Amino acid sequence: MVDLISLGKRAKAASRVLSCAGAAQRDKALRAIAAALRENAPAILKENGADMAAARERGMTKAFLDRLQLSGERIEGIAAAVEEIVMLQDPVGVVESGRTLENGIRLVKTKVPFGVVGMIYEARPNVTVDAAALCLKSGNVCLLRGSKEAIRSNIALANVMRGALDKAGLPGDCILLVEDTTRESANAMMTLNGYLDLLIPRGGAGLIRTVVENATVPVIETGVGNCHTYIDAHADLEMAVRILDNAKTSRPSVCNACETVLVHRDIAGRFLPAAKAALAHANVEWRGDARSCEILPGIKKANETDWETEYGDYILACRVVENMEEALLHIARYSSGHSECIVTESYESAEIFTARVDAAAVYVNASTRFTDGGVFGLGAEIGISTQKLHIRGPMGLRELTTDKYILFGSGQVR
Amino acid sequence: MVDLISLGKRAKAASRVLSCAGAAQRDKALRAIAAALRENAPAILKENGADMAAARERGMTKAFLDRLQLSGERIEGIAAAVEEIVMLQDPVGVVESGRTLENGIRLVKTKVPFGVVGMIYEARPNVTVDAAALCLKSGNVCLLRGSKEAIRSNIALANVMRGALDKAGLPGDCILLVEDTTRESANAMMTLNGYLDLLIPRGGAGLIRTVVENATVPVIETGVGNCHTYIDAHADLEMAVRILDNAKTSRPSVCNACETVLVHRDIAGRFLPAAKAALAHANVEWRGDARSCEILPGIKKANETDWETEYGDYILACRVVENMEEALLHIARYSSGHSECIVTESYESAEIFTARVDAAAVYVNASTRFTDGGVFGLGAEIGISTQKLHIRGPMGLRELTTDKYILFGSGQVR
Repeated sequence: MVDLISLGKRAKAASRVLSCAGAAQRDKALRAIAAALRENAPAILKENGADMAAARERGMTKAFLDRLQLSGERIEGIAAAVEEIVMLQDPVGVVESGRTLENGIRLVKTKVPFGVVGMIYEARPNVTVDAAALCLKSGNVCLLRGSKEAIRSNIALANVMRGALDKAGLPGDCILLVEDTTRESANAMMTLNGYLDLLIPRGGAGLIRTVVENATVPVIETGVGNCHTYIDAHADLEMAVRILDNAKTSRPSVCNACETVLVHRDIAGRFLPAAKAALAHANVEWRGDARSCEILPGIKKANETDWETEYGDYILACRVVENMEEALLHIARYSSGHSECIVTESYESAEIFTARVDAAAVYVNASTRFTDGGVFGLGAEIGISTQKLHIRGPMGLRELTTDKYILFGSGQVR
Repeated sequence: MVDLISLGKRAKAASRVLSCAGAAQRDKALRAIAAALRENAPAILKENGADMAAARERGMTKAFLDRLQLSGERIEGIAAAVEEIVMLQDPVGVVESGRTLENGIRLVKTKVPFGVVGMIYEARPNVTVDAAALCLKSGNVCLLRGSKEAIRSNIALANVMRGALDKAGLPGDCILLVEDTTRESANAMMTLNGYLDLLIPRGGAGLIRTVVENATVPVIETGVGNCHTYIDAHADLEMAVRILDNAKTSRPSVCNACETVLVHRDIAGRFLPAAKAALAHANVEWRGDARSCEILPGIKKANETDWETEYGDYILACRVVENMEEALLHIARYSSGHSECIVTESYESAEIFTARVDAAAVYVNASTRFTDGGVFGLGAEIGISTQKLHIRGPMGLRELTTDKYILFGSGQVR
């Protein structure tokens, strides 16, 4: 039996202090964390080395090892990212609206921290620091649960950060690490009602699905991106090729990359050969419906699974549609609601597409790769929400706060 | 096996039309609904009469029968409430922020409907119309599941509303009723992922707990109110008595009523006897801790359960505290995060209380009874959220929408 209740109680107690700490004190603690990370880099690297050795022994993939590995340079990058978070505007205490009620009560709606934010994530030690820093900046205690392959690195990082908090005059328990990395500890976090005000899973589709299906605490669903680029009959051909190339090949592993291109039949004969030639530089594998296969002989046939899949790779599904309506229905059925794009010179097509497509970000004539907290001006992001509750799209510091109405009266009764 | 999937598919199809309908068309449909309710009052009352007869036969309580019963006057009130919703500002399409990105992309953050909103509620036929009207105004299709005792009333009301939608040129399926009122249908709704964008339970604590524990679709937790009034050492005695009397006795069954009064020991000897005398008009039963029992001899002793309970009745728990810190810890432990109040003339006490108490609404010198969408200026409310995700406090039309980023580019790639 994993005792997350006692961790939850410590988190709540720390939250009572942190939620009342001013921005200056939180920023001081963040600076102390950055300094402590640099200072303790050798000790952190030693523990990370042990994690790496164990992972190599288990025969983990090269991509996995790359995500797990720290280096002097990477620790410097992590510390610098913490200092960048210091520079962002304080989200706590912002008054977003208010009014004086008819009866004279002065009502003020203020942004306050959630309280305790949980994160479940995979073997990426940088997430340990990034999540802790974003939570601290927004006045939230974090309860972190990484995966077992990174546990020694995570313990080292958490201890360094906890020591820095202590020096800066805040409770070390503002950053708590769940050292038990069994499945039971993840399950216990998902049902830690009364202690966890929010849970954010960060990782692959499997992890996110598990959390969404099993959590009884409030969850933000992040990161699944089955994104489409629709090439309208009235598209600028050169622009359409450039946008698709960028959306597919600039970084295929991320959630805002394009997975399926939908092409209006009137332009398909010209667009598809040009696009295939342009994307050849990245050896993109095409998988098309029957009409695409006619236009691009030799490509693989796409099936239902292709429409549903977020490849995260140099693979592109392709379908020729009769009209925009068919494209809209395809997107309504298969989109994960992340980012969708139309390339068109038609005002009417742009209007219909942006009104009808139900996604966090809908683009006209620009690559879906721009969906990102930094690009959208949020400063930093803790994930990209594909749910509609609370926040949709990049989740920044503001979205790590909730509301509190404060009402100043003079004896009013109802 | 309850076939909610096919209802879900119909809801999604209707949502594609409704989400693009303009405010004028939605308002026209709401007016048609109000007219149709009046016109069909006799038929609705006949079905309600059958529900009432069955409920009487089952020996339901007087309070239950009162909530279930419709009358000509009540239907007129329900229709008038729909017309009031027409008058509220359209929440759809509001641009809350936007900017031109460095690369020239014009980014606009717009409010859009959730899509399909589910409601699970108890035997109150007025909720059927109220929920449908708020959803329709905000561009959402609603999937309604009331309780079996009101099923004939609900079917009649839903049919009348669906007919009115049809006349107004919108799909009847914008308002869908789950006619199966078994436990299975409720469970199926809670896990209708992919079709239900949001689920709002409306009713008693048991219903809400069940939904929060079992739902895999996004949920808004509403309505549980274990509210406290803290009488500070520096309170105006007369004001403190007036506020407590109002918070406890003006309508004890509602969620913003006071359940526990916490009294600073320095004022307890004067406050408690005065308050007990003042609340005697409503025959309020007091349950106190040891010190309260000394000051108010003869009152019942309070136990742990009393601190935890939302009585919803003319019962008041009472505790004398050493200092404000003890009051804050009591509230942190037992509050449901709904509405909390301090009565004080001390600036410092007010500052500390409003900063430290973690609730949707925190009052200084005013009755907690004001927590209400109408009073707060939201126009109407579909419930009062006690969770921190998405919305905290009264949930109005704006909170029935989510965000969509629309990005207008001219060929930008990353």
